[in-house]
Amino acid sequence: MAATETLTAERILEATEEVLRRYGPAKATVVDVARVLGVSHGSVYRHFRTKAALREAVTHRWLSRTETALAELTSATGRPAPERLHAWFAGLFEAKRHKAGDDPELFATYGVLIDESSGVVEEHVEVLVGQVRAIVEDGVRSGEFTAPEPDATARALFSATAHFHDPAYAEEWRKNTVEAEFDALVGLLLRGLRA
Amino acid sequence: MAATETLTAERILEATEEVLRRYGPAKATVVDVARVLGVSHGSVYRHFRTKAALREAVTHRWLSRTETALAELTSATGRPAPERLHAWFAGLFEAKRHKAGDDPELFATYGVLIDESSGVVEEHVEVLVGQVRAIVEDGVRSGEFTAPEPDATARALFSATAHFHDPAYAEEWRKNTVEAEFDALVGLLLRGLRA
Repeated sequence: MAATETLTAERILEATEEVLRRYGPAKATVVDVARVLGVSHGSVYRHFRTKAALREAVTHRWLSRTETALAELTSATGRPAPERLHAWFAGLFEAKRHKAGDDPELFATYGVLIDESSGVVEEHVEVLVGQVRAIVEDGVRSGEFTAPEPDATARALFSATAHFHDPAYAEEWRKNTVEAEFDALVGLLLRGLRA
Repeated sequence: MAATETLTAERILEATEEVLRRYGPAKATVVDVARVLGVSHGSVYRHFRTKAALREAVTHRWLSRTETALAELTSATGRPAPERLHAWFAGLFEAKRHKAGDDPELFATYGVLIDESSGVVEEHVEVLVGQVRAIVEDGVRSGEFTAPEPDATARALFSATAHFHDPAYAEEWRKNTVEAEFDALVGLLLRGLRA
């Protein structure tokens, strides 16, 4: 890649993902990232002050792609809240399943990075729970849901669906009964929310 | 321990747990178990034909203690089904939390053994799901619950409560908000089951 292009944080993060994919999380270094970009490692450090900061930033970027995709479902206030909530959890499951299934090596790599940087994951979970809460609150306002404490309810919903988004269960996502199990669970949760 | 006592499978399993606790899962051997019992390792092999079989049996024994304790709640048909279901999940959570908190080393040891013998865990989950299903079916019969497919519902309930029994979440069980989260989730699930 030509060094004459402006070196942006985004370009560094792209290159970092590429390097992680190529060498794995144990071997990837900032020097590798600089080499891919055709710049000195000092130039990379001007954007990310430590290797840990760079790894956190690339993990954050990976997780936030899902947040952005789901934000659309959150704000589609024209649709009934139960339908949106179902679509939101289906979208989350689909996104995680794609990440795990389409590129298992990169998924495993991010698994390692996630274990290193729990703060990034907690932030990700807070963003997702916030989106669920927004849908629950809309449903309460429209009289479709009963939820005296929308925040606690959003957390309960997120916890209840862990089998369909927590990477710890990624092995189960290939079972041919998994869709039916997802629908049974979300159906039960939506009945519990009904006004 | 005197070799003159009859060498039962139960005595061997007790000694195996003791040896596992003392040496850890990586180092514990059948010879260690025989030594604790004051018998030859051949005598142990007459009860358990391989080291793997012995480890599976001790894991099964550990898991089945929880099953036995919960079976009482399952069969207490005099109590309302929603109350029994709440008590059953609270009992499961309490049992797992005790195992994790009272003796973390033994809990970690069984974690290793469980990874070795997935068949034993699947059987354990089937027994537990069967108990949940029995309570759901009672609730349907008494008109307290609506569940067209009690088996799918029981599996959904078990999956939904993973945060409160799957050892993968053991770290979270010490949080001081965990009881409130458990109640919020089970409350939501019970509302979903309401006839």
